[in-house]
Amino acid sequence: MKIDRLQAFSDGVFAILLTLLVLDFKLPNYKIGHLGQAVIAQWPILAAYMLSFFYVGTLWLFHHDYFAKIKRTNWQLNILNLILLFAITLINYPTSLLSEAVAQRNLADIRFAFTSYALVALVISGLFWVLYRFMAVHQDLMIHQEQHEQFYRAIRNDPLRSVLIYVIALVGIQFNVVVGALLILLGNVFHFIAYLRLSRNIEKHHLIE
Amino acid sequence: MKIDRLQAFSDGVFAILLTLLVLDFKLPNYKIGHLGQAVIAQWPILAAYMLSFFYVGTLWLFHHDYFAKIKRTNWQLNILNLILLFAITLINYPTSLLSEAVAQRNLADIRFAFTSYALVALVISGLFWVLYRFMAVHQDLMIHQEQHEQFYRAIRNDPLRSVLIYVIALVGIQFNVVVGALLILLGNVFHFIAYLRLSRNIEKHHLIE
Amino acid sequence: MKIDRLQAFSDGVFAILLTLLVLDFKLPNYKIGHLGQAVIAQWPILAAYMLSFFYVGTLWLFHHDYFAKIKRTNWQLNILNLILLFAITLINYPTSLLSEAVAQRNLADIRFAFTSYALVALVISGLFWVLYRFMAVHQDLMIHQEQHEQFYRAIRNDPLRSVLIYVIALVGIQFNVVVGALLILLGNVFHFIAYLRLSRNIEKHHLIE
Amino acid sequence: MKIDRLQAFSDGVFAILLTLLVLDFKLPNYKIGHLGQAVIAQWPILAAYMLSFFYVGTLWLFHHDYFAKIKRTNWQLNILNLILLFAITLINYPTSLLSEAVAQRNLADIRFAFTSYALVALVISGLFWVLYRFMAVHQDLMIHQEQHEQFYRAIRNDPLRSVLIYVIALVGIQFNVVVGALLILLGNVFHFIAYLRLSRNIEKHHLIE
Repeated sequence: MKIDRLQAFSDGVFAILLTLLVLDFKLPNYKIGHLGQAVIAQWPILAAYMLSFFYVGTLWLFHHDYFAKIKRTNWQLNILNLILLFAITLINYPTSLLSEAVAQRNLADIRFAFTSYALVALVISGLFWVLYRFMAVHQDLMIHQEQHEQFYRAIRNDPLRSVLIYVIALVGIQFNVVVGALLILLGNVFHFIAYLRLSRNIEKHHLIE
Repeated sequence: MKIDRLQAFSDGVFAILLTLLVLDFKLPNYKIGHLGQAVIAQWPILAAYMLSFFYVGTLWLFHHDYFAKIKRTNWQLNILNLILLFAITLINYPTSLLSEAVAQRNLADIRFAFTSYALVALVISGLFWVLYRFMAVHQDLMIHQEQHEQFYRAIRNDPLRSVLIYVIALVGIQFNVVVGALLILLGNVFHFIAYLRLSRNIEKHHLIE
Repeated sequence: MKIDRLQAFSDGVFAILLTLLVLDFKLPNYKIGHLGQAVIAQWPILAAYMLSFFYVGTLWLFHHDYFAKIKRTNWQLNILNLILLFAITLINYPTSLLSEAVAQRNLADIRFAFTSYALVALVISGLFWVLYRFMAVHQDLMIHQEQHEQFYRAIRNDPLRSVLIYVIALVGIQFNVVVGALLILLGNVFHFIAYLRLSRNIEKHHLIE
Repeated sequence: MKIDRLQAFSDGVFAILLTLLVLDFKLPNYKIGHLGQAVIAQWPILAAYMLSFFYVGTLWLFHHDYFAKIKRTNWQLNILNLILLFAITLINYPTSLLSEAVAQRNLADIRFAFTSYALVALVISGLFWVLYRFMAVHQDLMIHQEQHEQFYRAIRNDPLRSVLIYVIALVGIQFNVVVGALLILLGNVFHFIAYLRLSRNIEKHHLIE
């Protein structure tokens, strides 16, 4: 079956998820005449929104480039993609927890929020690794499959590297929340680097017309 | 009229519905410093979310494959598809009822929530059966209509089988909620099997290029 | 400029609006153990949801078929379409008012809710009339423009007929809410008939390949 | 990489954002039997909704026409587009602040709401300027790049003009809210004029088939 509708459907879910994240910006309770202070006190929502917007945005870019190499889909890939989208939509929830916990400045709650964020991110990266493994054994679904080995060699372990960063983040959060938060940020930055590596690899091998 | 925009529109509704389901994850009321416990107590929301995400996901896959066999649409099919999408978006509501009722652990409410879930699922399966019947008498709308009989023979009663499971589930729920819940799950799993049967049938008959 | 992205964008707005309507189904306040009664008391939400789902659905079908006759767009048509989409998204609000007012059973409020519903519907039909007039003087944007007059003759006043029904409904609501409600329903049914007339006209004239 | 999916994804975000704006229309708290007055008192929500709907609508039209001149994308343009979409989705929040502050009629809050609105609009216009600069140095990504200079000369500074209007608005708001509000409106109208200039330029140069 052709890949087009799978891509369009996935793009739709990404676009909706990105835009839904903004719904976390709710009017604060405020004393009339002091709206400004109440809004500025909501900076953790903005921070969490930015973190998740660019995380989901990077995931979209990655998904976009990765599936551009695929020409056909089958039911296994359909299911795998659905599970991946499920895990990605979940990120909405830890994002809310994070903005709430940081706003309330309670250390235990912040730790829990970061832990759940890292957990979801870890599952997402793990599923990307499953996707890489699946495509490696179903090279017939890909465009230019003769170049697959060469293309795949350099980037095959990127999802595992990502998983590793989030595992370290999960441990780090329990000892020091700031270190843990930075590790999560590092994980997201690494995702972005992995996207750039994938993107350049595709251009180098002219995998897409 | 060409089928493309009908497919794109339906895909859009499915993508939005799937992503909206995540909005049921609202921040719990919690004692500051005990966010973790409050979130963990929300497991029924996660369970209901997973149930409905994969149910709607399977419905999308099914809809996707089924409409891939269709080359043209007319106003009757447009209306039928609209009614089908209406019934599918309704699933959002019993999903909320289910997560609320399970969280409150009241048997009568859980029974009611499962009953309404099974009812909506039954209507959806019933409408798929109407769609099957409609396409059987409008074979001129299909791709490769000469293969239609052969293709259709094996799977024509799948929606009715689905309806039957949900009827049994509806009865079962009134006597034993756990049995009823398992029957609903079975109905969803059967949906998935019906999708696999459809998908393999399409590949076998090379109905799609 | 090509019409494709305008169509896709409009389809997106319709798909999202249709699916957002379901968000009005919120969990009722209920006494634990009596969820069923509380849900059943929410029937006005279901009724309002059905009314608006099929109204917006019909508007989509209509928009879909109408724009299928158009091959190019320009900035005036872009703006006109944007204003039309604006009016259509507004329907979300009277839908909420309606379900609330009917649930509270207050006659003055029900009258106000139906009035605002009819008002929005009237504006939508009025804008369709503007669209018809606009296309009549920009026939160069259409497919098969040589058949335009012939095609257009029978259906050119359908939007005005629609406006008339909603004007009568607006007056009727002030005297008798039930009559007014039936007139709104009649307006929506007429929309549907207008869609069928458009759809058959297109098939008759083979305006679309 | 081809531009199609980037366009479709961006269109999706615009369509969702436009439609989500309507969710700010929540049922007012009202005395039963006085729904009408409560709804009419919500006019600031309608005003803010109209302002933002047509602002985002114009941004979409602009984005639509601008990207129709581009034939390929690369990772830098992907990122730039993502940042632009981020800034545009943010507009949802000042829209809520605005309707709330105007409804409460507190001058300090209204000033703050307009300030945040102008700030987001300023960032959006600034990002369009970055996009213009980026495309000027990556003309190989464009269709008909030989006409680029000629096409670009007249409109290259439109985003900067927009930024200037919003800077003046930001200053104006601090002295006189009404003047500031009119300047924001002027900024949005100028956006629309810039869109018309772009649109006519494209038609004049036949940049799109």
